[in-house]
Amino acid sequence: MSGAGQPLHSFAAILAWLAQQQQQQTQTVTQIPLAELDQWQMGGDPLRLAHRSGRFFTIEGLHVETDAGPTPVWDQPIIHQPEIGVLGIITSVFDGVRHYLMQAKIEPGNINGVQVSPTVQATFSNYSRVHQGAATTFLEYFVEPGPAQILIDHLQGEQGSRFLRKRNRNMVVALDADLARRLPMPDRFCWMTLHQIKALLRHDNVVNMDARSVLACIPTGYGQGHLESAAPHDFSFFDDSIPPAAHSPQPRGRHASRHTTDEIIHWLTDLRSRYHLHLAPRPLDGLDLWQFDGQSIHHTSGNIFSVIAVAVATHTREVQRWTQPLLQHPGHGLNGFLMQRIDGVVHLLVRACIYPGNREIFELGSTVSRSDVELHFGRPDAPRYLDLFRRPPPAWIHYAAVQSEEGGRFYHYQNHYMILELPPDMQLDPSPIHRWMSLAQLQDFVRHGYVNIEGRNLLACLDLAAPRGGEHGLH
Amino acid sequence: MSGAGQPLHSFAAILAWLAQQQQQQTQTVTQIPLAELDQWQMGGDPLRLAHRSGRFFTIEGLHVETDAGPTPVWDQPIIHQPEIGVLGIITSVFDGVRHYLMQAKIEPGNINGVQVSPTVQATFSNYSRVHQGAATTFLEYFVEPGPAQILIDHLQGEQGSRFLRKRNRNMVVALDADLARRLPMPDRFCWMTLHQIKALLRHDNVVNMDARSVLACIPTGYGQGHLESAAPHDFSFFDDSIPPAAHSPQPRGRHASRHTTDEIIHWLTDLRSRYHLHLAPRPLDGLDLWQFDGQSIHHTSGNIFSVIAVAVATHTREVQRWTQPLLQHPGHGLNGFLMQRIDGVVHLLVRACIYPGNREIFELGSTVSRSDVELHFGRPDAPRYLDLFRRPPPAWIHYAAVQSEEGGRFYHYQNHYMILELPPDMQLDPSPIHRWMSLAQLQDFVRHGYVNIEGRNLLACLDLAAPRGGEHGLH
Repeated sequence: MSGAGQPLHSFAAILAWLAQQQQQQTQTVTQIPLAELDQWQMGGDPLRLAHRSGRFFTIEGLHVETDAGPTPVWDQPIIHQPEIGVLGIITSVFDGVRHYLMQAKIEPGNINGVQVSPTVQATFSNYSRVHQGAATTFLEYFVEPGPAQILIDHLQGEQGSRFLRKRNRNMVVALDADLARRLPMPDRFCWMTLHQIKALLRHDNVVNMDARSVLACIPTGYGQGHLESAAPHDFSFFDDSIPPAAHSPQPRGRHASRHTTDEIIHWLTDLRSRYHLHLAPRPLDGLDLWQFDGQSIHHTSGNIFSVIAVAVATHTREVQRWTQPLLQHPGHGLNGFLMQRIDGVVHLLVRACIYPGNREIFELGSTVSRSDVELHFGRPDAPRYLDLFRRPPPAWIHYAAVQSEEGGRFYHYQNHYMILELPPDMQLDPSPIHRWMSLAQLQDFVRHGYVNIEGRNLLACLDLAAPRGGEHGLH
Repeated sequence: MSGAGQPLHSFAAILAWLAQQQQQQTQTVTQIPLAELDQWQMGGDPLRLAHRSGRFFTIEGLHVETDAGPTPVWDQPIIHQPEIGVLGIITSVFDGVRHYLMQAKIEPGNINGVQVSPTVQATFSNYSRVHQGAATTFLEYFVEPGPAQILIDHLQGEQGSRFLRKRNRNMVVALDADLARRLPMPDRFCWMTLHQIKALLRHDNVVNMDARSVLACIPTGYGQGHLESAAPHDFSFFDDSIPPAAHSPQPRGRHASRHTTDEIIHWLTDLRSRYHLHLAPRPLDGLDLWQFDGQSIHHTSGNIFSVIAVAVATHTREVQRWTQPLLQHPGHGLNGFLMQRIDGVVHLLVRACIYPGNREIFELGSTVSRSDVELHFGRPDAPRYLDLFRRPPPAWIHYAAVQSEEGGRFYHYQNHYMILELPPDMQLDPSPIHRWMSLAQLQDFVRHGYVNIEGRNLLACLDLAAPRGGEHGLH
C-alpha cells in the first residue's frame, strides 16, 4: 500500500497504445437525411422519432415554460431514454500503485475516432442481456460484483438541456490484484494510474465524457497541495501513490469552507422553491421556431443544436453498419470554473443551473456553461463571469483543453474546458445564482447527486498536482 | 452561551398553556357526503376533486405498476398539491438557553383539537399573500428573513402513499434575543426548549406532524450519551443547555458507522436502478376496487383509507366555516424504528421504502411503517421485523406513544410510534431493504432529502437523554 511501485505502463506507452487503437478501430460516418434512417421512424402522438424495436432512445418535442432566467417560453427537441445505464471503471492495486482499467472506444459522433472510455459503458439493454450471453465485456463485475468490491455507485445525470431526466450509474469497483492480473484482456483495454489519466485530460478530446463523469466521482486531491483535508475518509485508499500520512484528515476549522453545507442547502432550497419549470409534450413537427424537413430538425436561428442522421460503418462493433440520429452543435461551447484559494482552501465557484431535463429544477454546475459562447462574449447580455474566460492572464489558467461530449448522442460537439484560478485577494461582484464551495464540499455534493454533468466533467479535469500557468485562451 | 439559565416557562406552565388553548380554540367537525361539499367539485378529465378557486389541493386517481414489493398493480386516490409550503420554527437564546417558538393550532382532522405546531405552517397561497397584507403571523421571517438568520432550510417530502411528490420547506430561523423578546406575541404562541418539546413528544397526540418534521431536521444528541459525535458541527449551537465541551466532535474511527456513506449510497443506487415504478392518471370514478358514491370514495376491503368530506366550524381561523375533503384511516398504524448501539454508537435500522408519490423510487424510512398493522401481526406475510413490535420486552422500549398525522389532510389518523433498543449482542436476520445507519449518518441523509416523513417523524421522537424502559406495548 506504499507509494514505492511504478505504473504498469509509462505515459509514452499509453500514448502509443492509444495511437495503435486509433489505427485499429476505424469508422466511416456519413450524414444522411433524417428521412433515410433505417429502423428509426417518426410516429406516435405527439410525433416523435423512435427505433422500431422500442430500444435505445427516442427524440421527442418539448414545450418549456419557466419564470427563472431570461427566456420564459421555448420549444425544443429532447432525448428521452428512461433506462439507467452503467458507466463503470475497474480499479486494482499493482505493486502498491492503484490503476484504473480504461477502454479505447469509438463512437459515431466522436470527432477523432477512438477516445479513452470507462471499462464499461452499458445501456440497460446491454445490462439485461447479461444472463443471455453476448454481454458487454467486464459488465458482470458491476451487475453481480462477486469478488469485486464496489467503491462508488452513484446515480448521476446527463445534460439537462439535451436529455430528459436521464441518469446513469457511475461506478468504480475494485478487484484483487491476483484476479485483475488474470483477466482476459482484449487489446482495447489498458491499465493506467489516476495521475496518467489526469495527464491525458490535459490533451484535447482524448478522455471521453463518460470517463470524465465517473472520474469526477472519485475524490482526489489528498496531499496534493493546499487542500481542505476533510473530504470523506472512505476514499483515502483511492490514490495509493500518496504517502499514508497525507490521508489523515486535518482538523477542520468551522470556516474552512466559505459557506457551511447548510448555507448551500438553504440557497438551493430557496431557488428550488421560488421558481417554476413546466414541461409539456409537443409533436416534433410542431415546435415553435424549429424547422422540420426530411433532412434534419433545426432551429431557425442556426445557433442551437440540430437533430441530424448518420450512417455508420465500423470494424470494431458487434453491429457493423447502422444508422442513427445524433444532435449536432454549431461551434465550440465553453465549460468554465472559477477557482480561488480562500484562507488557503481551494474553492470553486458553483452555479445553480436550470435546464428543462433536470430532475431537480436547480442543480449545481460549473461557473459558466454555454454552447453558444461566441454569441455572448463582450455583450451586455453575456452570462455572469463569461468575459473572465475570454483572454485570461496566463497565470490564472489552471486548466484549458477542448473536450468532446458523448459521441453516442452528439455529433462533433466540443467545449472549451477551462479552470481559472483567481488571485486570492480578487473580489468578484456577487451573483444570486453562484456560490463558492470548497473542493471537499463539492465532492460531497457530487456523491449525493446535486452536481450536473457539466460541473462533474470539469471537476474531473482539476489536477492540483499539475504545473500551473500556460498560454491557453479562447481566442 | 453557557447552560446556566432556566427555560422561560416551566413544563407545568406549558401544559397549562396548552390546556387553556384547548379551551379557547374549539371547532365542530361533522362528516358530510362528498356530494355536499361546498366550493369543491368533481370535474376534469380524468375526473378529479378540486376547489373551485384552483387553490389548495386536488384529489386525483392513480394507477400504479411496480416490480418491487408484493403488489404489482393497484389503483388509489392521491392528494396532489404541487406547491411548496413553509413549515418553520423561530428559535432564540434567552439567558443562555435556546428556545423554540411553538404554536397551538387546531386542524379539522385532529382527534383532540389543538396540537403543538411550528411557528408557521403556510401553503404557497399564504406565502404569496405576504406582500398584500393579511399574511400568516411571523411568515415574513422565513420568506424575507431580514434580521433572522436561517439555520435550516430543507425541502422535505410528505407521505408518498398519500401525496403525489409533495414537498415543503422545513425551516428553522434564529432571531436575536432582544428582537425576539419584543415580538408581538398572540396567546397561541409559546417559547419552549428542545428538551421540553421532547418531553411533550412522550405524550400522545400533543406535538403535530409538521412540528415533528421540522424537529427531525435539527441534529441533536451531542453529549447525550454514547453517541457518535461527528454530526455536522454547524449545528453545535442548537442546544445551548449542553456544556460547550460536549460539542467538540470526537475523533471518528473509520468504522464508527456500521456502513460507510458510500455503502449506503450504493445500496440505494442499486435498488433505484433495478426496480421500476410506473404511474398513470385514472378518473376518480374508475379506480379498480374503489367504490365511488355520493358519500365517500372507499376501498372494497375496508382496510385502506377513504376520501370523506367534513363541514368545519371554528372560532379561531380567518375563515369560520368551510367544508373540505379529508382522508380517513381505519384503526391505528405502526411507525417503528429498531435501534442498537453498535460498538457503542447509536444506530437505527433504516428501510428503503417505495411509495407511488415518492420523488425518488426508493427513499429512506423507519424500520416498519404500516397503516394496516393489525392485519399483519403474527402472519407469514407480515412485513419484516413487524412482530418485534408486538409485545416487546419493556427494557427495549426507548420510545412509545401514539401520534397524529397532518390534521389538515387526514381525519383522526393515528400511528403507534415506537423506538425499540435491541440488546447490543442481538443479531437480526439480514434484509435486502434494511440497513443500519448511525444517528449522525442518518441526520446527514435527512438534510440531503433522502429520508421520508415516516422516518423523520419518528426520528424527532428520539431522545437519548430520556429515561429508558416503560410498560408500553401495542396490545
